Amino acid sequence: MSIAPKIKQFMEKSSWIRKMFEQGALLKAEFGPENVFDFSLGNPNLNPPPAFHETLRDLLAGPAEGLHAYMANAGLPQTRQAVAGFLSTEHGLPFTANEIIMTCGAAGAINAVFRALLSPGDEIIVLAPYFVEYLFYADNFQAVPRIVPSQPDFLPDLEAVAQALNPSTKAVLINSPNNPTGRVYPAAAVNALGDLLRKWKKETGQEVYLISDEPYRKIVYDGVQVPSIFQAYAESIVVTSYSKDLSIPGERIGYLAVHPQAPDREELINAMTLTNRIMGFVNAPALMQKALIHLQGRTVDIGLYQKKRDLFCEGLTRAGYRFNIPEGAFYLFPRTPIPDDVAFVQALQEEKILTVPGTGFGAPGHFRIAYCVADEVIERSLPGFERVMKKFQ
Amino acid sequence: MSIAPKIKQFMEKSSWIRKMFEQGALLKAEFGPENVFDFSLGNPNLNPPPAFHETLRDLLAGPAEGLHAYMANAGLPQTRQAVAGFLSTEHGLPFTANEIIMTCGAAGAINAVFRALLSPGDEIIVLAPYFVEYLFYADNFQAVPRIVPSQPDFLPDLEAVAQALNPSTKAVLINSPNNPTGRVYPAAAVNALGDLLRKWKKETGQEVYLISDEPYRKIVYDGVQVPSIFQAYAESIVVTSYSKDLSIPGERIGYLAVHPQAPDREELINAMTLTNRIMGFVNAPALMQKALIHLQGRTVDIGLYQKKRDLFCEGLTRAGYRFNIPEGAFYLFPRTPIPDDVAFVQALQEEKILTVPGTGFGAPGHFRIAYCVADEVIERSLPGFERVMKKFQ
Repeated sequence: MSIAPKIKQFMEKSSWIRKMFEQGALLKAEFGPENVFDFSLGNPNLNPPPAFHETLRDLLAGPAEGLHAYMANAGLPQTRQAVAGFLSTEHGLPFTANEIIMTCGAAGAINAVFRALLSPGDEIIVLAPYFVEYLFYADNFQAVPRIVPSQPDFLPDLEAVAQALNPSTKAVLINSPNNPTGRVYPAAAVNALGDLLRKWKKETGQEVYLISDEPYRKIVYDGVQVPSIFQAYAESIVVTSYSKDLSIPGERIGYLAVHPQAPDREELINAMTLTNRIMGFVNAPALMQKALIHLQGRTVDIGLYQKKRDLFCEGLTRAGYRFNIPEGAFYLFPRTPIPDDVAFVQALQEEKILTVPGTGFGAPGHFRIAYCVADEVIERSLPGFERVMKKFQ
Repeated sequence: MSIAPKIKQFMEKSSWIRKMFEQGALLKAEFGPENVFDFSLGNPNLNPPPAFHETLRDLLAGPAEGLHAYMANAGLPQTRQAVAGFLSTEHGLPFTANEIIMTCGAAGAINAVFRALLSPGDEIIVLAPYFVEYLFYADNFQAVPRIVPSQPDFLPDLEAVAQALNPSTKAVLINSPNNPTGRVYPAAAVNALGDLLRKWKKETGQEVYLISDEPYRKIVYDGVQVPSIFQAYAESIVVTSYSKDLSIPGERIGYLAVHPQAPDREELINAMTLTNRIMGFVNAPALMQKALIHLQGRTVDIGLYQKKRDLFCEGLTRAGYRFNIPEGAFYLFPRTPIPDDVAFVQALQEEKILTVPGTGFGAPGHFRIAYCVADEVIERSLPGFERVMKKFQ
């Protein structure tokens, strides 16, 4: 068989997750999709804001000339300029188009960053619980993800991060608002991370980049502020996408932004423009880039997600579940009443409730609920959640 | 500095190409873009066929529900089905949706294939002249491109390919219609390649995949037929995009197709579905996938490219250039009258003519002209081509 052994291993490893999804699909086939409560995927149920389709329609009503043509690998100058303008206000720093590369979503952005920074054997610090794809992204380039557990409240454990730093460390990857926990790191946590990496550089001469994956930055509740990593540390890169805030995850459009005062900023952008090209992304989709010139700062109605969060939190609390109330994103990450989270998730599946075990995020003893679904799916699922909890209490 | 040494090396290596492009940009700034003859990029000048925009407009006039949502990583079932139907007719083989993965262009497809097949140190046979990106794609996964020169007429040198096969060989990559030569491999050449790899498997037990990069399959002239690699060899994969035949290269949409009777076909498709995901492509852009359900077999008017080819071939022949008349794609690859193709290309630049030296394609002593430009650019450039040739005769 011709498949690379490493990929074969990935396929086998992820086969139990696939099996769960297959069981979910079987449930839907047997009982009808409306009778299965699918909280397994972060696929936003809201439609994009009307301005999104209006903008696309306007573009398609105009001249076809060059609308879908090749462009510079870093993206359309006007789109990069529009993003820079938005970021300048958001972060209070003077961004220009030269600090922005348009990418195929945040996933494409992280891979372009990793390819530019990481050589085989290099290490990247990943905080658990983590978005499981990070581990694959590191492996794409034979780099080593060094997993550092967070505190019980899911904030970074600074001492553990300090312990993990070593001569092979090239970057620290954070994700706030967090998938799967819904945690938003406060400014103090981000600043402390910046201080730690600055101190490390001073002591060792070694530059460690802080990469912040922020696709949920605009999906926050109760007026919570997401602090700027750019204000905390100069050697920093934000990667993000419009998948969640515009509800267009299938279109694969996002960007990366480098701190405007990062050392060797220009060389770094040139390197990532190259890696964005040679990994086969070439450029972010053209029509979406053109639309984004006109859509900076637009989002779906975040209040609708907050309502879903509140509905779920109330119901789960009543049923006896223990969890941190998410400050952002659209995930809940409750503790499981038994240590075996896979068994618990399977028990939920018997109630036709589909969730993901915490083990898949490097945090056993938890499970993830993606609540970007219709309100009534949440409401109708609650009795099932209650019955399963009773079984284990 | 944080950039991976290998990437830094790539940046330095390609800096002379970048310098040429920068000189071209300077020329345009100084003399006006209309007075510079830019044949350096394969960026099609034709607009997409009207049906393309009509289809997009129809989609955007309909319900927004799920139009831009996540989907299975392999793509939309209806799109995969439409592609399979088209391929079944084109290749005379019973394709189903299960043999197709929608990708971010052919570049994304090749990377997904390479990631699934290649481990560090594995070899991939690449025939020169080659599309230079292939070498980067192999390096993404620490694999080794083994360059095999073609015959003087740019057809595969079967003996040289046989010599290059070794226990590390995982695949042979071909590209017909070819960039940069415009050559279309006849059925005899493709069948001989299939025979060679079958013989190798019989003798060694080693499976070597034949990967065919075919973005120019529909851009052929004088009724030339592009033979089917699927008819020649079972362990085969076609990678392609709609960039050229629909003139939408900025949208990054294409697919890969595995031979319906390839051994371990299902596992291979599963592996590439995984790699398409973990490399950060996730899925091919959603709106474009939806449009393609309705656009199978549509192309721009290929006759317009044939007219450009004829115009250029006549003019260059008159001026004393020597070249094979391209049977497809939109490139000419003439010999340079002096061995130093970089010097020759620089001489053309003095006439405000931008081309690419053959050295960049592993074929020194040639230069590439991309003629996907307005007819009048070709016409107005011919006196300059003539003057430069006179200089060196």
